[in-house]
Amino acid sequence: MTGQESVDLGFARVDVGREARQGLPEVVYGTGKTAAEIASIVRTLLRHNDGPVLATRVEPETAAAVLAEVDRASGDRTPAAGLAPVPHGTYDAPARLLVWRPAAPAGFTVVVAAAGTADQPVAREAAAIATAVGLTVTTVTDVGVAGLHRLLAEQDRLRAADTIIVVAGMEGALASAIGGLVACPVVAVPTSTGYGAGLEGITALLAMHASCAAGITVVNIDSGFGAAMAAFRLSRVARRTTS
Amino acid sequence: MTGQESVDLGFARVDVGREARQGLPEVVYGTGKTAAEIASIVRTLLRHNDGPVLATRVEPETAAAVLAEVDRASGDRTPAAGLAPVPHGTYDAPARLLVWRPAAPAGFTVVVAAAGTADQPVAREAAAIATAVGLTVTTVTDVGVAGLHRLLAEQDRLRAADTIIVVAGMEGALASAIGGLVACPVVAVPTSTGYGAGLEGITALLAMHASCAAGITVVNIDSGFGAAMAAFRLSRVARRTTS
Amino acid sequence: MTGQESVDLGFARVDVGREARQGLPEVVYGTGKTAAEIASIVRTLLRHNDGPVLATRVEPETAAAVLAEVDRASGDRTPAAGLAPVPHGTYDAPARLLVWRPAAPAGFTVVVAAAGTADQPVAREAAAIATAVGLTVTTVTDVGVAGLHRLLAEQDRLRAADTIIVVAGMEGALASAIGGLVACPVVAVPTSTGYGAGLEGITALLAMHASCAAGITVVNIDSGFGAAMAAFRLSRVARRTTS
Amino acid sequence: MTGQESVDLGFARVDVGREARQGLPEVVYGTGKTAAEIASIVRTLLRHNDGPVLATRVEPETAAAVLAEVDRASGDRTPAAGLAPVPHGTYDAPARLLVWRPAAPAGFTVVVAAAGTADQPVAREAAAIATAVGLTVTTVTDVGVAGLHRLLAEQDRLRAADTIIVVAGMEGALASAIGGLVACPVVAVPTSTGYGAGLEGITALLAMHASCAAGITVVNIDSGFGAAMAAFRLSRVARRTTS
Amino acid sequence: MTGQESVDLGFARVDVGREARQGLPEVVYGTGKTAAEIASIVRTLLRHNDGPVLATRVEPETAAAVLAEVDRASGDRTPAAGLAPVPHGTYDAPARLLVWRPAAPAGFTVVVAAAGTADQPVAREAAAIATAVGLTVTTVTDVGVAGLHRLLAEQDRLRAADTIIVVAGMEGALASAIGGLVACPVVAVPTSTGYGAGLEGITALLAMHASCAAGITVVNIDSGFGAAMAAFRLSRVARRTTS
Amino acid sequence: MTGQESVDLGFARVDVGREARQGLPEVVYGTGKTAAEIASIVRTLLRHNDGPVLATRVEPETAAAVLAEVDRASGDRTPAAGLAPVPHGTYDAPARLLVWRPAAPAGFTVVVAAAGTADQPVAREAAAIATAVGLTVTTVTDVGVAGLHRLLAEQDRLRAADTIIVVAGMEGALASAIGGLVACPVVAVPTSTGYGAGLEGITALLAMHASCAAGITVVNIDSGFGAAMAAFRLSRVARRTTS
Amino acid sequence: MTGQESVDLGFARVDVGREARQGLPEVVYGTGKTAAEIASIVRTLLRHNDGPVLATRVEPETAAAVLAEVDRASGDRTPAAGLAPVPHGTYDAPARLLVWRPAAPAGFTVVVAAAGTADQPVAREAAAIATAVGLTVTTVTDVGVAGLHRLLAEQDRLRAADTIIVVAGMEGALASAIGGLVACPVVAVPTSTGYGAGLEGITALLAMHASCAAGITVVNIDSGFGAAMAAFRLSRVARRTTS
Amino acid sequence: MTGQESVDLGFARVDVGREARQGLPEVVYGTGKTAAEIASIVRTLLRHNDGPVLATRVEPETAAAVLAEVDRASGDRTPAAGLAPVPHGTYDAPARLLVWRPAAPAGFTVVVAAAGTADQPVAREAAAIATAVGLTVTTVTDVGVAGLHRLLAEQDRLRAADTIIVVAGMEGALASAIGGLVACPVVAVPTSTGYGAGLEGITALLAMHASCAAGITVVNIDSGFGAAMAAFRLSRVARRTTS
Repeated sequence: MTGQESVDLGFARVDVGREARQGLPEVVYGTGKTAAEIASIVRTLLRHNDGPVLATRVEPETAAAVLAEVDRASGDRTPAAGLAPVPHGTYDAPARLLVWRPAAPAGFTVVVAAAGTADQPVAREAAAIATAVGLTVTTVTDVGVAGLHRLLAEQDRLRAADTIIVVAGMEGALASAIGGLVACPVVAVPTSTGYGAGLEGITALLAMHASCAAGITVVNIDSGFGAAMAAFRLSRVARRTTS
Repeated sequence: MTGQESVDLGFARVDVGREARQGLPEVVYGTGKTAAEIASIVRTLLRHNDGPVLATRVEPETAAAVLAEVDRASGDRTPAAGLAPVPHGTYDAPARLLVWRPAAPAGFTVVVAAAGTADQPVAREAAAIATAVGLTVTTVTDVGVAGLHRLLAEQDRLRAADTIIVVAGMEGALASAIGGLVACPVVAVPTSTGYGAGLEGITALLAMHASCAAGITVVNIDSGFGAAMAAFRLSRVARRTTS
Repeated sequence: MTGQESVDLGFARVDVGREARQGLPEVVYGTGKTAAEIASIVRTLLRHNDGPVLATRVEPETAAAVLAEVDRASGDRTPAAGLAPVPHGTYDAPARLLVWRPAAPAGFTVVVAAAGTADQPVAREAAAIATAVGLTVTTVTDVGVAGLHRLLAEQDRLRAADTIIVVAGMEGALASAIGGLVACPVVAVPTSTGYGAGLEGITALLAMHASCAAGITVVNIDSGFGAAMAAFRLSRVARRTTS
Repeated sequence: MTGQESVDLGFARVDVGREARQGLPEVVYGTGKTAAEIASIVRTLLRHNDGPVLATRVEPETAAAVLAEVDRASGDRTPAAGLAPVPHGTYDAPARLLVWRPAAPAGFTVVVAAAGTADQPVAREAAAIATAVGLTVTTVTDVGVAGLHRLLAEQDRLRAADTIIVVAGMEGALASAIGGLVACPVVAVPTSTGYGAGLEGITALLAMHASCAAGITVVNIDSGFGAAMAAFRLSRVARRTTS
Repeated sequence: MTGQESVDLGFARVDVGREARQGLPEVVYGTGKTAAEIASIVRTLLRHNDGPVLATRVEPETAAAVLAEVDRASGDRTPAAGLAPVPHGTYDAPARLLVWRPAAPAGFTVVVAAAGTADQPVAREAAAIATAVGLTVTTVTDVGVAGLHRLLAEQDRLRAADTIIVVAGMEGALASAIGGLVACPVVAVPTSTGYGAGLEGITALLAMHASCAAGITVVNIDSGFGAAMAAFRLSRVARRTTS
Repeated sequence: MTGQESVDLGFARVDVGREARQGLPEVVYGTGKTAAEIASIVRTLLRHNDGPVLATRVEPETAAAVLAEVDRASGDRTPAAGLAPVPHGTYDAPARLLVWRPAAPAGFTVVVAAAGTADQPVAREAAAIATAVGLTVTTVTDVGVAGLHRLLAEQDRLRAADTIIVVAGMEGALASAIGGLVACPVVAVPTSTGYGAGLEGITALLAMHASCAAGITVVNIDSGFGAAMAAFRLSRVARRTTS
Repeated sequence: MTGQESVDLGFARVDVGREARQGLPEVVYGTGKTAAEIASIVRTLLRHNDGPVLATRVEPETAAAVLAEVDRASGDRTPAAGLAPVPHGTYDAPARLLVWRPAAPAGFTVVVAAAGTADQPVAREAAAIATAVGLTVTTVTDVGVAGLHRLLAEQDRLRAADTIIVVAGMEGALASAIGGLVACPVVAVPTSTGYGAGLEGITALLAMHASCAAGITVVNIDSGFGAAMAAFRLSRVARRTTS
Repeated sequence: MTGQESVDLGFARVDVGREARQGLPEVVYGTGKTAAEIASIVRTLLRHNDGPVLATRVEPETAAAVLAEVDRASGDRTPAAGLAPVPHGTYDAPARLLVWRPAAPAGFTVVVAAAGTADQPVAREAAAIATAVGLTVTTVTDVGVAGLHRLLAEQDRLRAADTIIVVAGMEGALASAIGGLVACPVVAVPTSTGYGAGLEGITALLAMHASCAAGITVVNIDSGFGAAMAAFRLSRVARRTTS
């Protein structure tokens, strides 16, 4: 970390001080940015921060261009004094995620539980980001409440987690069911799967808030990112209260 | 039944032919009617029909006045040729229901399952109306999905039913859970219990429609009446296909 | 049926115990799944269950690929001990439905009544699925309330049904009109036909719930599937109460 | 008519030119005005205009005070040169309407058709205002689509009307049904009767707009006033095209 | 007219009795129908009815195919006894309207007033349909309330109309302004022009209903068709009260 | 001004630095506060600031108690060194506003234009607050667009204003009409007057945003306060750019 | 703990196994329950569980009755073998909370930050419940983003917390601002304070979900209870990962 | 200026009198117009007005065609007596704006502050239009409230502005934060950036209205145009009060 607060790239003001404030470099939101813009922000973050650098919601062609551009630009110049050379990045296509310098696992376990197969893309995003920032993730799929036995069969795995991310669309009932089974924090992600009365995820979001299970919290529709970040915040307080 | 289609009382046109068409006399919706108006319609139905006569959503004071007025008016006059004397009615306060000439049980069993104690008034309305029209009702309370073990403990009773009426507010997840456990028809009643994101029952209604459990059907918010009537229709087709 | 509860295919957890619990194998929801994924689930269901296997909302090209893949894979291997060879499937393009091993008719009659020609795709889905699971279906089209004589001309057919599925978009008034004409269960399917104030089916859904006809039930927007499944549940209770 | 456009009373600017522009003096909307304010506006209109003067949505106590005040104030002073003395007004309690100088019938017939007894207050407002401005009104009540025979029994009366005002809450289906039966203009008034999915009249308003019956028009929720005014406009064009 | 009520084409039930009931043959709604289906319905209507036959919302390529098919099929066969040969149709591209056998003008004048240039397509549909059914239409464009002088300059034309159709999106204020200027019926058509808070026409629809101008009526969003049909109903009552 | 940023009263943290930052002391929002709490905050502001002190949305009984308490407490103690004695406050009942130390007029003129008499309370709040902070206010009432002549008659007054606050409920069309007539800033306040489709002011708010008049800005529903504050900001920039 | 899962009181099924599953006895939701019902549930929980027993949303008169009834009933009987005598409860009026047997502080610190004085009741509920279940709570009030200096002055306290509960109505911006300042978990509670466009808390709820600050989670509107329960779950995982 | 009020081009009525009324020629809204239509309106405005002529929301290919057509047509004819030759226009691609005859800077300073990089297109439109009409614009980007230090670092630039345009999507909190920092007028533009609970900009619009910062005003979603026009109105009143 360089101590600086932000770097102005003209088209964006990179918040390089976030790592110091929040324990993680700013995450790049890929939607609406060109490959050149993403690459430029990524390189700035790699230079000024020490931790994992991520770009979310990046489509495959853009991802390839970003990876190439970051490598090329890094090869061009000698690293600034005292900085390590820029590492190669990797792309996780189902999660639409680019990662450089992923964090090592720190022993905080997260279960990502997805109600149906249609909820997989969001579950993948949550799992990939959580892994990249150093959480230990396992995934449980297709445990919607219309087949409770499938959920109950996974109770032990759920109860062993430090935190559970519940990914569910349609009526979002899985959050209530899991919220009642476990004692750990439950972060619910409503998804836009389903049709008609599902209202593109609004119904699931409202239903999760109206849940009869106490202490569940909710993030934005389809925001695997938001859930992973919430889990990261949890992992930090766990670590802090330990030492 | 007198064969007539409707009787015009000036302030209302009583559909006395409904019993012939649908197997049950018209049910009087009490909201917004005076005791005199309700009594007048009730007497018309008692005269022109043979089956149970019901008035829903009647507050206690109005109920007392209606019962008295129906008795008084009946005592005044000699029954029309060939008609039985008008029977006494009864009032079920928690269900806000008035009943004259309830039907005898016909062997069709309904379980009314309510998610929480706040859903009781709607569950009571459903149970009382279903009973009055000849269904055999048992009630299961406080089986919300936040405590799945309470629901699972009732599985046998649920599976033994000919039809289940699920009454649930907040996120309405109980409908999905029961829908996945049983093979019989499930009629879901969203309730306006809860606050905030529950949107006075709209969230539960939408969530029940977006349910991942196949073949659940839904009636209007807080409509214990609608669910009981749906169950009555079911009981008739069951009877018909038998003979 | 093999007695097993679920089979984990990695990308999906197939609920092979549903046939035992609910009298019908799980139905595959095709949206968002690849041909290979659908074929894999279908074969699993054909192996572990005895009843009809269906995949809904499958587009024509995907359907052809699924049919071929199921046949090919089945030819590859000898059926497991005691299991019949995998049958050929068929595709109903207007209903976007794939069916293997359809059920024989069991004598329960369903009328699918569609308000307008634009409601046909949903009506087709409802009819095809209901037929595949063993119900006897007839269809009545273009009987919207703006031309009541067309509806009244069909009264006898409507009254003869064990159950009626009403498919209507725009203002959804057909459900109320039919609900008042018949005594049997009425399952209403709002559709997203129409424009402007129709709000993609939301208006029809709300209107059907607010219906003045007692005991109508409603399923999700455009869900011919949901209505057929509701009718299937009805047919089972009818059968049960008979024996 | 005095030719003046408006009179400023300080708390209100009375549009006394409206009679010249639109054939009818401004109608006073009573909600939120004191008896003194209503009386003052009424007297201004009686002075400066020749036609009927109406005040809508006036509660009984306020109405009595307004009637007394208008009489008292009129008795105090000699009418301005060439003006007739101020007439006595009358109050129609169910319609919550005050009327002075009602118009003579001009031969334009309106049927007000109300779906249920709960829609009566709005139907009464529409009928009373329409009558006061010179239309010939008959009312048909309790003809909701859940009992089509009641509606069909009234077909001749409906077809004889110059215009039909349909008053219906819940799902508002009566507008579609009548729209398909008659050739004359149909003005639909959604009402806030019903509960839950009726959304205080929003569902009926949307459903009436999405109606499959061509050429129906709609006014605001519970606006018997709006419908009567629309009918008055119709009566004028009818008269104009005649001469 | 043949006296028959409906003709069943398999895919549609043509309401050939509508002309007798409502003075105008059924209008074909083109959206979602193939050219062959439209042509088939059109020929049925031309055979069984005497008045104008219209198909709305038909895209150019489909229109050409329909015109050709109707001509071809008509040439194939000898007209049924006593029926005139099938006439050629015409296509109005901006209105997306097909017309056969347009009605002669009957002396009822309609002004279509559009708030902005973006509202033109809807205004064109209204004007073309109204003309085809025998109304005499003039159009006034670009008279939105943000430039009142443009509207006021057209006052005389507006006041001379038998009926005014107001077409406006965004905030829909033109309906209120015109409603206050004229005495004749005003039919408001909200359009989906604009963006953001315009909510695809919902805002204009609600605003027109909440209008402070008395007696305005409203039809569905973008429904030039609905407004023209409402004007046609008006023209008939005008004619009837004349004779 | 004392230079201090905030004063902690336990139940509230008074932002006494706001006068330095924004040219006006914090305004006290009365809703939900006791008379004692309001009085305590008011006295703190009077001590630490030099400008006008206001409390909005205060009901009459509370207002009397606040005035008495501020006077009593002030009489108790000797003013802090160098501070003037606490002045008496005044209460404007229609505006529900308490004012101490009103600002002298500074020559910036505001016209508050209200569409109807029902919009008066909000117009009063806007006018009273604007006056108290030193703006010169005139009010124009009952100029809704349904009677354009009333509005046009006020054109000169409107054009002479430095800023216009438009207060309108129902469809809110007055904002568009005035926005097109004048060149100065227009701040629109939607009100919750009206019923049904007016949606408690939401319709007016949306319609004002969708307005076809360029450069209109909007504040919250019923927020006469917000509009007056916006006008105050405008008056300051006008003053600044002058010197 | 008695090992039992639930106790059926007829009107409610008390989930006495929740303490074993989730580390805390069931919390009684007071709304809609009589004092006798609450007292009965409370005594059951005190008997069958060891931890703190809470009843939320209890009005003052009901609270007094509950406290008396629990004491009386406890005095009546000898405690069951091996159970401690029932303790006295306490009532926190601003939080509307009844507590028996509060937990000892376990060293997990929570800051409850409220945007304005109107958000106090919800903040009080959150703080009182969190304290009762053993968390160490401090409260920061009146730190809305319209006066950022007040928020920034509290940065150190905020950064020292293990978890922050942000309570904010209106636009709910405080959640974003705090989310960007701290690294610990942030649980946002939207409140129904404000008016008009605040939509009774819906706007704040949506805005908190759309927040640009990563990893914030949200609970239901006005649910101080939900936030406190979420914090309790967090405290448990912190404790678990420590040992 | 020619004194004329409007010019009728058949497809549009150009408001050439607007410059006289409001100090700026009508601005052409490009969406839905052909290049020929835009060019025709632009030439009319250039002829009849003296000030800057703008066309907004013009895509690149259309823009090129418009520029060419305006030049070509101008070369064809001799300018009308006393008029200057038509100038060349320029196209600003990111702002999608065409400008002819931009105004000279008049000394009124505007800061356009954008919350994130995704808000840039709207910020660009606001800045380009404001510049074209003679305001002096600087832009501040990426100052969202999730990184308050970035915003606070720009305080001096913000405080020096005559007016600030705040462009923000998602939860729109930037408007509240800036509103509390500065004394000048703040015009907030909600944008449709973000997903899920952002509701295409509706959430930001509502949140900005519910803002706790006093005197903020709001324009339509994504309307950089509306904000620039509001700033232009402000600049005029500032100028007027000066002289």
